[in-house]
Amino acid sequence: MEHNLDHTLSLLARTPAALNALLRDLPETWTLRNEGENTWSPFVVVGHLISGERTDWMPRARMILQFGDSRPFEPFDRLGHVRETQGKSLGQLLDEFAGLRLANLRELRALNLRPEDLKRRGQHPSLGTVTLSQLLATWAAHDLTHLHQISRVMAHQYREAVGPWSRYLGVLQCHGHSAP
Amino acid sequence: MEHNLDHTLSLLARTPAALNALLRDLPETWTLRNEGENTWSPFVVVGHLISGERTDWMPRARMILQFGDSRPFEPFDRLGHVRETQGKSLGQLLDEFAGLRLANLRELRALNLRPEDLKRRGQHPSLGTVTLSQLLATWAAHDLTHLHQISRVMAHQYREAVGPWSRYLGVLQCHGHSAP
Repeated sequence: MEHNLDHTLSLLARTPAALNALLRDLPETWTLRNEGENTWSPFVVVGHLISGERTDWMPRARMILQFGDSRPFEPFDRLGHVRETQGKSLGQLLDEFAGLRLANLRELRALNLRPEDLKRRGQHPSLGTVTLSQLLATWAAHDLTHLHQISRVMAHQYREAVGPWSRYLGVLQCHGHSAP
Repeated sequence: MEHNLDHTLSLLARTPAALNALLRDLPETWTLRNEGENTWSPFVVVGHLISGERTDWMPRARMILQFGDSRPFEPFDRLGHVRETQGKSLGQLLDEFAGLRLANLRELRALNLRPEDLKRRGQHPSLGTVTLSQLLATWAAHDLTHLHQISRVMAHQYREAVGPWSRYLGVLQCHGHSAP
């Protein structure tokens, strides 16, 4: 399937409300536990999404439109969530994510991107040449990868509690597929 | 982690709103496409969740409380979604799921289950002896397995669109882990 900007916008606009409905005021058992050492809880994932809103998606889109592939993107700060989450509650993070996403989508819509703009190229520091279209599709798929992760991390907390049903629950067979 | 009924109820109560926020009025590209022959779209998954509300979770809980392990559960009808989805829109399914879940949780709360009730045993047609506690924990984990599936099915639609980023997106490395 080809990338469709309207479909991307539809999905990006819904993620904050979906995470809010799923996570707000849930017991911390679900939101603060992770899958073991050096893994992320849902709380940390929301911090990571905030970090992406600030430093990744729209800044990279602007770089492509301004500089094309003449300058590589800043590498994505995969520890940006540490700064974003310090001293905050999950409720604050959910609000912050929703606000940043709303502002970013407003800016993206205001660009009135035409099909030829979506073909413009940028330089990824390790992947090489990418297009604006691929960047925006990745933004949406990145939301889904973290929804996939959150559901897996939460299910992990009930691995023992479900008893013999564990073999029927696909999410408990998923061992994560993080980026290198 | 042990099973905690309050934590289970908290999660079960949120799933309908989370799916509603994610899926309602999304373009059909996201909601009606699947991962290929004999796989499920998000639309079908919501039908399957409705079928579980009607015929699986609370009926099995009632059987455990009434008959213990003297009578096996009815096998879960994994094609129940066909009947549930016929001629309906996704919006109708989301409403129906929310209504059924609300009624089921009301009934579950009204049972005022004590710790000793949660230890009561039932007979699963293929897994053998299970407890009421395991059944209720599985109900919650089953929501998560299908949220995990929905995010994977949706991300699959952008497998090509993300270009070289596909290797960084964990959800695109997940090949599903359905029950046999």
